Amino acid sequence: MADIKLGIIGYGFMGHEHANMMETIDEIDLVAVCDTVMSQMDDAPGSVRKYACMDKLLEDEEINTVIISIPNPLHLEAVVKAAKAGKNIICEKPAAMSVEEFDEMCKITRECNVGFTIHQQRRWDADFRTIKEVYDRHLVGKEYLVKSQLYGFNGNMHDWHIYPEMGGGMLYDWGVHLIDQILLMIDSRLVSVYADMKNVINKNVDDYFNILFTFENGITAEIELGTYYLTPKRAWFLGGTTGSAVIDGPFQAQGNVDGMIVRTKHLLENVPGKITMTAAGPTRSFGEPEPGLIYNEDLPKVDCCHKDFFMNYINAFYGKEESAVKLTEVRKVLCVMDAVRESAKRHQAVLFE
Amino acid sequence: MADIKLGIIGYGFMGHEHANMMETIDEIDLVAVCDTVMSQMDDAPGSVRKYACMDKLLEDEEINTVIISIPNPLHLEAVVKAAKAGKNIICEKPAAMSVEEFDEMCKITRECNVGFTIHQQRRWDADFRTIKEVYDRHLVGKEYLVKSQLYGFNGNMHDWHIYPEMGGGMLYDWGVHLIDQILLMIDSRLVSVYADMKNVINKNVDDYFNILFTFENGITAEIELGTYYLTPKRAWFLGGTTGSAVIDGPFQAQGNVDGMIVRTKHLLENVPGKITMTAAGPTRSFGEPEPGLIYNEDLPKVDCCHKDFFMNYINAFYGKEESAVKLTEVRKVLCVMDAVRESAKRHQAVLFE
Repeated sequence: MADIKLGIIGYGFMGHEHANMMETIDEIDLVAVCDTVMSQMDDAPGSVRKYACMDKLLEDEEINTVIISIPNPLHLEAVVKAAKAGKNIICEKPAAMSVEEFDEMCKITRECNVGFTIHQQRRWDADFRTIKEVYDRHLVGKEYLVKSQLYGFNGNMHDWHIYPEMGGGMLYDWGVHLIDQILLMIDSRLVSVYADMKNVINKNVDDYFNILFTFENGITAEIELGTYYLTPKRAWFLGGTTGSAVIDGPFQAQGNVDGMIVRTKHLLENVPGKITMTAAGPTRSFGEPEPGLIYNEDLPKVDCCHKDFFMNYINAFYGKEESAVKLTEVRKVLCVMDAVRESAKRHQAVLFE
Repeated sequence: MADIKLGIIGYGFMGHEHANMMETIDEIDLVAVCDTVMSQMDDAPGSVRKYACMDKLLEDEEINTVIISIPNPLHLEAVVKAAKAGKNIICEKPAAMSVEEFDEMCKITRECNVGFTIHQQRRWDADFRTIKEVYDRHLVGKEYLVKSQLYGFNGNMHDWHIYPEMGGGMLYDWGVHLIDQILLMIDSRLVSVYADMKNVINKNVDDYFNILFTFENGITAEIELGTYYLTPKRAWFLGGTTGSAVIDGPFQAQGNVDGMIVRTKHLLENVPGKITMTAAGPTRSFGEPEPGLIYNEDLPKVDCCHKDFFMNYINAFYGKEESAVKLTEVRKVLCVMDAVRESAKRHQAVLFE
């Protein structure tokens, strides 16, 4: 019998994902689930109790931990209730609709002395971890640019994600992960954020955004996402003074990542005063490379998966590790999301202190 | 015998290019060239006169038109002298080091009543014309995004382009073309410009920039260039509500352009209230497309080449066509280049009136 007795609040898509995950984790017992739509729980494991509302689930004294996986605007109410019921809390991302809401959550969970963290499981995406490894080891020299791109073909969004009042839109759904990854990777003060946001296909919520981050160490990061950007892929680019790391293909959150580090055998030698009369193809600067000038190396291998979020949670529960997802980090991401909205509205950058 | 009698001021790389071009144009006679380095003219065509300085060339009464192809900071002096000598002027890009310099050039050429235009020959690049054709005919529906990317592997720059005081750097060298193309294509008021500029490999001049344009019609344009961005290519992306136009490969300024229009057979149907429990691969929004959902169409064919600049020049000379490169357009590009520098310095967007 495990010490962590879990209840899942909201048994929609992510609720199901969490129940599936728990099948693989001995250290957590899934005790109960709840959903306001009873039929959603028809396929819940036979051993778990099913409640028609979160209040009932929170009265279940066997439960000491809850995962909150209900639409975004309902997170605050659920966190408050769960904290008052003395349950430790894992909340789905985005934690809150605003920084103010999140501050309320932090206050109540502190007052009630319950654990509180956010399910930012994409910190353990293999594509991200691979690029982070290149960055941490400076495998492309002094870095100047990180690009994180996610393009899809669906156009429309799923379910409640089409409603602004439900916290819909891609900034809330995916932006929160992509921004979290960038802030986790680049260990430098954020200077400014400039963003463009659009609703291209969806009537009321953002389905395209482009965010440019300037960091004090001189690195620029760019995050671009589109649900109707028809070169579907999850791509990364990390440019440095001795090479580029490139991932460019289908989404590879888990398992092996296809990509490469690209280097050149040498740079152009410019002898000042000498006039270069040779043309490489149609332009001297951007013609075809001589054969062999450009060569590839393998990306480093990483070993990670989304389960690692829960393994860290368990270790933190037993005091063996620090909690990986810190509330200060979550708050910073929400601040950046506010800045993104403001910047996109005013066509003006938001400067950080 | 042609009516246009040409002298080329500056017989470096571009001077040679112009001389070669004149071999193919009956309507212009190349009369003379000049260069301060005499040996540069050793391979000039035998029939042309060679002068050791521009003053001597400008005294040549047979010449009625000059091309100025000397380093950027010398353009102003050459334009003033050529105007006072009564010659029509084609000046290399960037026309001037600043808007102020360009205004001086316009004033003196107006006062002296000589022709004045700028060699923005990349308006006739096949890749640009292809994307412009897709845009003009709205082949991807309502457009939301245009991206123009140019990446190289050389790192360093050529000759005097490494010196700031010579007007070096990639914004002057290539930015002037890439900005000109975007402003020519998008027929809407420019609202704001936000830019990042770096010197990654080069010590003193910019060799990476990224510029985001917001237009009043809701379209965003992004221009990105790097001399050490190791996925060398000249790429375009035009995204709209019914498809994406994509060019992604080696520089294809002339001739056939490889690329495609990408469309989807249908979009995701979102029935409000229905909860989508199916997962496509690792994510519902960004999984793999079902077979056949995404399909390609050919890009439109265009017929253009750099010689078209001169054919327009000749037709304008005889009053048969308007001059394609207007001074107001050249001035606007220089204003944007100023905004790019200012934005990059302050990490803040520059708003246009």
